[in-house]
Amino acid sequence: MARMKKTAPIGVFDSGLGGLTVFKVLARRMPEESLIYFGDTAHVPYGSKSPEAIARFSSEVAKFLAGRGIKLLVVACNTSSAWALPAIRKVVKIPVVGVIEPGARAALGVSRGGRIGVIGTEATVKSEAYVKAIKKLRKGARVSSAACPLFVPLVEEGWWTGEVVEAVAKKYSAPLRAAKVDTVILGCTHYPYLKPVLAKVMGSRVRLIDSAEEIARETESVLCKLGLRAPRGRKGRREFYASDAPERFGRLARRMLGTPVSKVKLHKFD
Amino acid sequence: MARMKKTAPIGVFDSGLGGLTVFKVLARRMPEESLIYFGDTAHVPYGSKSPEAIARFSSEVAKFLAGRGIKLLVVACNTSSAWALPAIRKVVKIPVVGVIEPGARAALGVSRGGRIGVIGTEATVKSEAYVKAIKKLRKGARVSSAACPLFVPLVEEGWWTGEVVEAVAKKYSAPLRAAKVDTVILGCTHYPYLKPVLAKVMGSRVRLIDSAEEIARETESVLCKLGLRAPRGRKGRREFYASDAPERFGRLARRMLGTPVSKVKLHKFD
Repeated sequence: MARMKKTAPIGVFDSGLGGLTVFKVLARRMPEESLIYFGDTAHVPYGSKSPEAIARFSSEVAKFLAGRGIKLLVVACNTSSAWALPAIRKVVKIPVVGVIEPGARAALGVSRGGRIGVIGTEATVKSEAYVKAIKKLRKGARVSSAACPLFVPLVEEGWWTGEVVEAVAKKYSAPLRAAKVDTVILGCTHYPYLKPVLAKVMGSRVRLIDSAEEIARETESVLCKLGLRAPRGRKGRREFYASDAPERFGRLARRMLGTPVSKVKLHKFD
Repeated sequence: MARMKKTAPIGVFDSGLGGLTVFKVLARRMPEESLIYFGDTAHVPYGSKSPEAIARFSSEVAKFLAGRGIKLLVVACNTSSAWALPAIRKVVKIPVVGVIEPGARAALGVSRGGRIGVIGTEATVKSEAYVKAIKKLRKGARVSSAACPLFVPLVEEGWWTGEVVEAVAKKYSAPLRAAKVDTVILGCTHYPYLKPVLAKVMGSRVRLIDSAEEIARETESVLCKLGLRAPRGRKGRREFYASDAPERFGRLARRMLGTPVSKVKLHKFD
C-alpha cells in the first residue's frame, strides 16, 4: 500500500446506477481525484439476492477494480456493504470504505432523541448492519427498520414524485412513524431521489440522512491519513464500466449525474 | 429425439418465480407428466437486461435442463421467449415451446375487433415479438404495447390489489385505453396475479389473455404429435431448481402454487 501512487484512481462500486449519487459527491468534493465507477448491471438488483451471491458478485467486481490499479475502493451499495465487506477485504489489499458506518455516524450526529429509522432493501434490513453499527456507536439508541423493495424500481422508472410513490412511501414508513423516529437513514443509494416525497410523508421535523456526503468525507479522510490524496489543481479522469447494457447505463447515468458521461465500457464476468 | 422416453420430464424455465403460473397449469392439465422447474434467481429480472445477456443466461439454463434429460423445454419467460429462442435452439436438440405465439393466437381467437394491447417488460415490448407474431397471424390487426416495469416488483412484494397497484395500472394502461383495445395480452408470467386490478382498470368489455392455458395446450399438442405423452394414470414427479436463494424461492413458490413444494435445489452458473 505504501507504494500506491497518489494519482491512482478511486474505485466506486454499486450493483447498478444508485451509486452514482455517491460518485457525484466524490467528483464534486475531490475534482482532482480520478474515479472509476462499476455498475454490476448484469446482476442488479442485489437487494433480493442471497448473502452468498452478494458476496460472490461483490468480490468479482472488487478484484476487477483492483486490477485497474485503484488506490481505494468505495462500496457505494448498501446491500453489498451490509453483507460483503469481509469477502471483499479478503480478495483486495487496498482500503475499502463501506456505507454503513458513515451513515450510522451521520444519523447519530444529527439525531436529537436517538430514535433512528433505517430504510433499505430486503437484504440490507435483514442484515441488521445499521442496527449493529448504531448500537455500537451509541448503546441507548433505538432503531426501527423498514424494507422498501419498491423504491429502487420506482426510482429507475423515473417516478420520483406523484401519487404512486407517495402512496408507497406512506405504506412503507408507517412503522417508522409509529416508532416516532426523529432521523431516518436512507439506506440505499437510490433513495436520495425520493427525498422530497419522504420529507413530505415523514414530516419536516424528521431528519433524512443521505449518506453520500458522509461517505465522501470518510473517503477523503482515509486518503489523507494514508498520504494518498491526489495533488490539488489536477483534473481527475472519470471512467465507467457496466457488466451489462452499457448504452442503457450511459443514458441513465447522464440523466442522474446531470453531466456528460464518457463511453461506458462493458465488462462481463460470466 | 426419436429415442426420447415418454416418461422423461418436461422442463419449465423462467427468470424467477413468474413461470410458476405456467407450471401450475401444466401440472393441473397433465398430472402424469414429470416437471422440472428452473428459476434463474441469480439473474432475475431479465426485463431490463440486454438481449445478449438474456440469450446467454437462457442458453445456460436450457443446457442445464437438457442435461437433466428433459423431453421438451417450455420457455415460460416472455422476455426470454422474445429474445432468446434462436440461441436456445442452437444449444439444445429438444422441442422448445415459447410463450409469444400461443399468446398471440389466444388473443386473436377472442378479439372481436382485432385491436390488441400487449403489456410486458421493457425488453419484451422493445423486441416487438408480439406485434410481429400477431401481424403474421392476422395482417389487419392493430397492436398497441405498453412496458410495465413496476408490475413485477409489485407482484413480488405481494401488492396484488389496493390503491398503489391500481394507480400504477391506470398510468401504464392509459395508451391502451386511448387506442380502444378490445383484448390485452398479459405478456409476462407475473401479470396474471394482477388480473382483478387490470380488469377493473381496463373495463369489463376488454378481454385479458393469460397465456398459461394456451402454452399448456401447445405443450400438450407438441408432445402428442411427437408421440411423447406420458402414460395416463401415472403420477409425475415435480422438481425445482433456483440459481440463487433456493429457500426464499421455495417459500414464495409454496404461496404462489398453493401447494407444498419439494426441496428447491441450488444450481449456480458463475
